[in-house]
Amino acid sequence: MFESAELGHKISKKIWKKEVPGLREGLLDAQLELFQTKKFPVVILIAGVDCAGKGDTVNLLNEWMDPRHIESHALRDLTDEERERPRMWRYWRVLPPKGKVGVFIGTWYSGPLVENVYGTIKNAELDQQLERIIRFEKMLCDEGALVLKFWLHLSRDEQKKRLKLLENDPKTAWRVTDTDWDHYKRYNKFRKVSERMLRSTSTAESPWTIVEGTDSRYRSLTIGTAILSAIRQRLDTPEPPRHQEPIPPIHPAIDNLLLLQTLDLSKKLKKSDFESELEKYQGRLNLLTRHPEFNKLSVVIGFEGNDAAGKGGSIRRITQALDARQYRVIPVAAPTEVERAQPYLWRFWHYIPRKGRFAIFDRTWYGRVLVERVEGYCEQKDWMRAYGEIDDFEEQMVRNRTVVIKFWLSISSDEQLKRFKEREKIGFKRYKITDDDWRNREKWTEYERAACDMIDRTSTEIAPWTLVEANDKYYARIKVLKTICERIEEALGK
Amino acid sequence: MFESAELGHKISKKIWKKEVPGLREGLLDAQLELFQTKKFPVVILIAGVDCAGKGDTVNLLNEWMDPRHIESHALRDLTDEERERPRMWRYWRVLPPKGKVGVFIGTWYSGPLVENVYGTIKNAELDQQLERIIRFEKMLCDEGALVLKFWLHLSRDEQKKRLKLLENDPKTAWRVTDTDWDHYKRYNKFRKVSERMLRSTSTAESPWTIVEGTDSRYRSLTIGTAILSAIRQRLDTPEPPRHQEPIPPIHPAIDNLLLLQTLDLSKKLKKSDFESELEKYQGRLNLLTRHPEFNKLSVVIGFEGNDAAGKGGSIRRITQALDARQYRVIPVAAPTEVERAQPYLWRFWHYIPRKGRFAIFDRTWYGRVLVERVEGYCEQKDWMRAYGEIDDFEEQMVRNRTVVIKFWLSISSDEQLKRFKEREKIGFKRYKITDDDWRNREKWTEYERAACDMIDRTSTEIAPWTLVEANDKYYARIKVLKTICERIEEALGK
Repeated sequence: MFESAELGHKISKKIWKKEVPGLREGLLDAQLELFQTKKFPVVILIAGVDCAGKGDTVNLLNEWMDPRHIESHALRDLTDEERERPRMWRYWRVLPPKGKVGVFIGTWYSGPLVENVYGTIKNAELDQQLERIIRFEKMLCDEGALVLKFWLHLSRDEQKKRLKLLENDPKTAWRVTDTDWDHYKRYNKFRKVSERMLRSTSTAESPWTIVEGTDSRYRSLTIGTAILSAIRQRLDTPEPPRHQEPIPPIHPAIDNLLLLQTLDLSKKLKKSDFESELEKYQGRLNLLTRHPEFNKLSVVIGFEGNDAAGKGGSIRRITQALDARQYRVIPVAAPTEVERAQPYLWRFWHYIPRKGRFAIFDRTWYGRVLVERVEGYCEQKDWMRAYGEIDDFEEQMVRNRTVVIKFWLSISSDEQLKRFKEREKIGFKRYKITDDDWRNREKWTEYERAACDMIDRTSTEIAPWTLVEANDKYYARIKVLKTICERIEEALGK
Repeated sequence: MFESAELGHKISKKIWKKEVPGLREGLLDAQLELFQTKKFPVVILIAGVDCAGKGDTVNLLNEWMDPRHIESHALRDLTDEERERPRMWRYWRVLPPKGKVGVFIGTWYSGPLVENVYGTIKNAELDQQLERIIRFEKMLCDEGALVLKFWLHLSRDEQKKRLKLLENDPKTAWRVTDTDWDHYKRYNKFRKVSERMLRSTSTAESPWTIVEGTDSRYRSLTIGTAILSAIRQRLDTPEPPRHQEPIPPIHPAIDNLLLLQTLDLSKKLKKSDFESELEKYQGRLNLLTRHPEFNKLSVVIGFEGNDAAGKGGSIRRITQALDARQYRVIPVAAPTEVERAQPYLWRFWHYIPRKGRFAIFDRTWYGRVLVERVEGYCEQKDWMRAYGEIDDFEEQMVRNRTVVIKFWLSISSDEQLKRFKEREKIGFKRYKITDDDWRNREKWTEYERAACDMIDRTSTEIAPWTLVEANDKYYARIKVLKTICERIEEALGK
């Protein structure tokens, strides 16, 4: 795999001088067109062997390109705000928006690679992590990002030579650390694991380009040219017309029986029972948040359901039990300008809470497979792939000890009509009912269908959906509170 | 000052039961109207004596109000990302946008108060810090925020009683720490300093309301009612018609001689000199960033100037000398939706760099007194007050060991015309010239006037403007680089 990158590739000064001006002009032009059209973001990874010139390459790219529209990230030590979130959070928070270029040096590959070489993680876990990376990059590509990955390679001898050179020059000696020599001693192991890694993460949408790092002119020209041609090609390719691609449709069960229709919506709770249960479960929830281990968890609660199913009321019964300093309620509406320039899940990543905190979403990251699907705001292929992306998102939270709790609040069509009419009557509830609600109601069947598909595809063992029979508000609120208590207790190992 | 808050105010259960439902309904209504109209943000501070019920009050407010549009912040320990920025950064980053309510428990008052009581800062510094707080709150009010400040008071005996009560109940004993008792021992000192603090920070726009904390019903009803009536009043007051208020105009010098006109734009550098100087200063800058003390500084560089004065080219000469991982270039354009919902300076606060890093602004926080003034995007009173707000902003950065370097790149009108025409000719420069540029050119005199006023009012000792004669690009670029080197050296005490 690395053979071609040990051939001693070189570019003469003459060719360099001839090629560079055109390349720079091309890059600037492409960058400008990209910025003005805001067609897509460019994510460039510069990874590879120590001393192969990663930093120098990034500096040169920055020198060549318009510094206003390119940004470099060398993510090394975790800040404490990063440490309390899932591993990929730090990358999500600095993804370039459409129209911009983001260059990553400390990439999501370094962790798994080093950990495997040093034996902290076994091959099976390495594979798992790589699998996750593949899914992450696939998501970026599906969301329109141009992902370019470069691996700078050096032979063992060449690496040693470089380390010595740097070390012997007083001006650069500081760049060589003990870690570098430790890594060098494990060169062969690094090579083997890197090869495995590159092979398994080179996909059609985001292949690796291996570049010999020895000659700086060769290295820079290779990478610069590759970046330019990839951006140029993408800019010049007309966008495919929006069309329904031949994706196999999701077929409902042939007897037309849907999960949500099997709920027993007649379930009820007496007011007096509700009051005592409310006190009981709010107290239990409050105690749980003061459990000595609670600071090692975070809790993400998502509410979906029919309009007027009582999401707001349920959320209030939760927050009443909490200290206002430890939760945040996030009402999810149409994405803002800034959010639209990012992958769909970006804004939800943004709100992942720190340890010991709650994030409660009123409407969630499931919007894509509900409202966006039904209203046709995105294509079928987009909402179809969302199921998998959402699973990944939740899995990453769960792995970071986040308790992910999802509620679908279900009411009957008759109950909804009754509540809509009530809302129109009562002064301070009138704001809750809009023309949209009436419009959505006409699509009851499509929404029900979408909700059932969603539950089928995303109710996982680690992040199950809880279906809540919500015709009776008392019953629904208690079921919600009880579920939250049980899920947190489970996570605390109680 | 605290006498009325030691009278033993009480509200009976009966009155409470009668009053609360209406209050809640009113709060929900007001909150909704606020959210829908997005007229202004509400900033609520809950401060006061330990054990006076700050946390309980905030929890109750959250219970009463719509949790989707209110958020509480108890900022205690600094995260490392906060520690590297000016003191107020952590508050700026969580300010509520227009239409929302933000409640702060750990407020900007706690630091100065505690530090003064414990003798870490003397009275003179306390006054200085309070003065800064006053300016900050004034800015919030001027930007349209409704700022409500509540101080919960307890007498010394009452505080002791409370501490004992909490301590004796196993369920609440954890809430009483040694710090609480330490504070209690200093009750009289706290009282004295608090009084001084409240007196000096009670302004017409954002007065303090002192509330006796003993009886929870009295406390909650008082605060709830005050919040409701303040929001309600503000919502119901029609916005004053936009008009030019009678603010004294800024008069130009009566001989019409402007600072920018006195620059010697004929200053020049030969190409060969430029090349050697460029190498020299880029090298010097690079070395400075590797100085062992450099990690204790951050650098903010701002570029303003005539269109086509060479800002981009100058920025590139700086970034060439830096490691791409340590700087960020921020092109400043029209604010986004999210930015428009915040005070003017919010987005610039957002970009304040961590220690050891550069933020380079292509166009800056001076937009308000340049383009917004000239094009009439804001009223005179708004750009007039901006001078002072900007001074505060820069002062806070400087106090946090940020080197603030501001350049005005000046070219003559003839030179600009020449460059515009060139840009229209050369392919890859064509993007740099737009209809806006030609339009702005027609307002040359107004822009020049605005720039001169700006420099007069904001060139301070700690953050001076450097005027750059930029008809000759070589000369300009070297002057920029040299200035940066000197300013950093000065900050390093070299």
